[in-house]
Amino acid sequence: MSVNRERMDRIFHPRCVVVIGDKKQTNYMWLRSVLTLKGHVYSVQINKDEWPGIEALGVKNYSSILDIPEPVDYVIVAVPRTVAHRVLEDCIRKQVGAVMFFTSGFAETGTEEGIRLQNVLGEMARKADLYMVGPNCMGIYNPEIGLRHHPEQYCGEGGEVGFISQSGTHATQFSLVGYVNGIKVSKSVSYGNGIILDSTDYLEYLGGDEDTRAIGMYIEGVKDGRRFFRTLKEVARAKPVVIWKGGQTEDGARAASSHTGSLTTSVAIWDALIKQCGAIRVDSFDELLDVVKALLYIKHPHGERVGLMAMTGGQSVVISDAFAKAGLKVPKLSEISYKELASFFNIAGGSYMNPLDVSSNFSSPELVLRMLNILGGDENVDTVAMEISSYFLSQRLRVGAKFTVDELVSALTSFRGSSQKPFFTILTAGPKEADALSIREKLVQQSIPTFPTFQRGANALKKLLDYTLSHAE
Amino acid sequence: MSVNRERMDRIFHPRCVVVIGDKKQTNYMWLRSVLTLKGHVYSVQINKDEWPGIEALGVKNYSSILDIPEPVDYVIVAVPRTVAHRVLEDCIRKQVGAVMFFTSGFAETGTEEGIRLQNVLGEMARKADLYMVGPNCMGIYNPEIGLRHHPEQYCGEGGEVGFISQSGTHATQFSLVGYVNGIKVSKSVSYGNGIILDSTDYLEYLGGDEDTRAIGMYIEGVKDGRRFFRTLKEVARAKPVVIWKGGQTEDGARAASSHTGSLTTSVAIWDALIKQCGAIRVDSFDELLDVVKALLYIKHPHGERVGLMAMTGGQSVVISDAFAKAGLKVPKLSEISYKELASFFNIAGGSYMNPLDVSSNFSSPELVLRMLNILGGDENVDTVAMEISSYFLSQRLRVGAKFTVDELVSALTSFRGSSQKPFFTILTAGPKEADALSIREKLVQQSIPTFPTFQRGANALKKLLDYTLSHAE
Repeated sequence: MSVNRERMDRIFHPRCVVVIGDKKQTNYMWLRSVLTLKGHVYSVQINKDEWPGIEALGVKNYSSILDIPEPVDYVIVAVPRTVAHRVLEDCIRKQVGAVMFFTSGFAETGTEEGIRLQNVLGEMARKADLYMVGPNCMGIYNPEIGLRHHPEQYCGEGGEVGFISQSGTHATQFSLVGYVNGIKVSKSVSYGNGIILDSTDYLEYLGGDEDTRAIGMYIEGVKDGRRFFRTLKEVARAKPVVIWKGGQTEDGARAASSHTGSLTTSVAIWDALIKQCGAIRVDSFDELLDVVKALLYIKHPHGERVGLMAMTGGQSVVISDAFAKAGLKVPKLSEISYKELASFFNIAGGSYMNPLDVSSNFSSPELVLRMLNILGGDENVDTVAMEISSYFLSQRLRVGAKFTVDELVSALTSFRGSSQKPFFTILTAGPKEADALSIREKLVQQSIPTFPTFQRGANALKKLLDYTLSHAE
Repeated sequence: MSVNRERMDRIFHPRCVVVIGDKKQTNYMWLRSVLTLKGHVYSVQINKDEWPGIEALGVKNYSSILDIPEPVDYVIVAVPRTVAHRVLEDCIRKQVGAVMFFTSGFAETGTEEGIRLQNVLGEMARKADLYMVGPNCMGIYNPEIGLRHHPEQYCGEGGEVGFISQSGTHATQFSLVGYVNGIKVSKSVSYGNGIILDSTDYLEYLGGDEDTRAIGMYIEGVKDGRRFFRTLKEVARAKPVVIWKGGQTEDGARAASSHTGSLTTSVAIWDALIKQCGAIRVDSFDELLDVVKALLYIKHPHGERVGLMAMTGGQSVVISDAFAKAGLKVPKLSEISYKELASFFNIAGGSYMNPLDVSSNFSSPELVLRMLNILGGDENVDTVAMEISSYFLSQRLRVGAKFTVDELVSALTSFRGSSQKPFFTILTAGPKEADALSIREKLVQQSIPTFPTFQRGANALKKLLDYTLSHAE
């Protein structure tokens, strides 16, 4: 079986969206999420007490979806589970493009009643050949057209990353945390119990989506493993797919069963199959974010040798350990580089063997750029990475150095633009985390990739390198 | 050889401190660091251009330490390396308690000249039986008496944690980042090349220091391995010692050699010896911070079974994976707990199998406290840990829930006080990291331990459990 691209297009690009059962108690979260839609939005709510609140949002309300005066592409359902099948019946009669059930309380509860109700929905949809998203999920997010599942998600601009998530939290967080990290979503879906459309369908769809350059997935379990891995193999040939498996342990699997009613597979099998398919495995939200960031913003590395810059001696040791432990190398530089460094580098309290422990040499953007260029031009170096300690930077900017953060960021932007080699930063925070956040914002604006710890930066580079090498074969 | 406690007391509690060679170029960082001393502070600076700046700080300047009109306990030297031996000569004649050399450019440069100059200092000090801290370091920090090595370190209040660091950065960062995490230093030292007083001496001293309840160490290399591990074994019997070894890899070891001239030992040997001595190994600054926090603020656990609370379903799966992967267990709760939970827990979109996926049940501090008490009272649970998602919390506080963060923190404080079981929180940030920082501040004020990721919380608990079990034998 293969998913119907035209029908998927319709639900990912709806021109008419209907929200059924939204209410004041949740501050009309669904209507507020889709008010941004480039298209028509209607409400269906039979409770008259809710009508004034819905009208205040400027949304026309109907008592039945059958009364909506135009074809409906995508329906968001937030009614109690006991009436879900009645709503579904109307949707089928209306011949909508797809129904998304935010409604939960189905197989994930592990109860007889929950399983029964889920089976009813599934049978009705299959019989009517209706596409269903969920139940027990947040549904589709297409920022470009303003179709959201959370009122704080950005819209108006499309991104490059597709995200397929069995969890609503992770889908929401990926869009929001991704955004402040320079990662923008092309299309995403939270699909919960996935009883009709499942991970494989979405993967196949986003695999063929031109706006989607890379795909991330959070999966607790798949229904048809053979089809999933066959599809994964095909898609991963065309674009990078990063997979985070939830329920990797016995305890996690039990939680996954309570969450989305998923039966999980052994993580060892997953791991082997992901590798075989040429996809990238990650094990946490942070790692997912880091690897996607690396895929988008770091040039593909050709080898394992890194040229490092750190702001103090203690950090030079620690950054070296972090990269070496991740499976990378911190080599000696070439004699040409050492000769040039020796001509100006102040070694009192510093050192330039690699890492460059820059210390007081971090005195002007020009000098930083000069040192980066030496690392970038060194034949022993495949990738350049530098620490920016927001704490020591703020000290240097107060004492001894006469430049601004913006001037430093300009120098890094210039290096990023001119260097043939992959480049990224590691922004360590120290005690003043708010300072680091404001520097991160400036780096993100200039598309300079940055990671918050040495380990995370080193790990992201290693995953990118492994991916690049395995796909170059 | 054993360190002389009386002489160590003198340099950790100096009544008279002299700074030699401080200057405007570094904004008089040393004088500003020790102006807070409960005692006398003098400057020695022969450059007349610097005198007005020094006097403006209210510090009396002399041209030679020999002119200081009272006994000197601790000298901070920030002169160029070429004149360090002349300063040392005067200090020896003055019979000071100890000399600390911030001055660098010695064996860590790997140059003949650097090694020669270091040997000169070492021989002079040994011949005169003078205690020396460093060179190439930041020296001693005793917040209680206002002896600092950085102008932003807190003082006036003593803490419980001793820190011994071969790196000035890590010593400074431990005090500053520790502080915002509720970890306060009793005494610490950055000792750099450690040519006279070495890690073992400081360890022995802090091992016998009554104000020091736990000890952290960042070490790149030790001079007398036998004595170090003998001392470690003794000290670790009396109080927890957490060791972070810098230079764990070949590349890291090379950086360590450039940093403090250290010859590092194989990490496998270190690991085995640390374990044998009953100390705790950590591998990063963050892990050091987490484990020290756990030692200070989490009651000692008696088993591996955790009762977990997470704010959404996706996080319930992920928190379970994190704890299980760390070697802990997320068990089913007792029937009594399930019965009680069933009496009030709203399972629409949530679940209470363990983790409690609280979802909409996170509606009042009373209900949170009730759920925590169920976990804390459950016979299958050894430790209780809960996620606070600053993002979802702020949403709940806007929609559906009528309480403040302070009221929530009060409920947690009450649970922490009444529960016999270990308890901690994991504060996930989402896209609004600044919100999480302000919640962290409230938690720290109430001594509620908190970690920023599931992995870090789980790892800290596992290390605490292993430590507790191994010392209970």
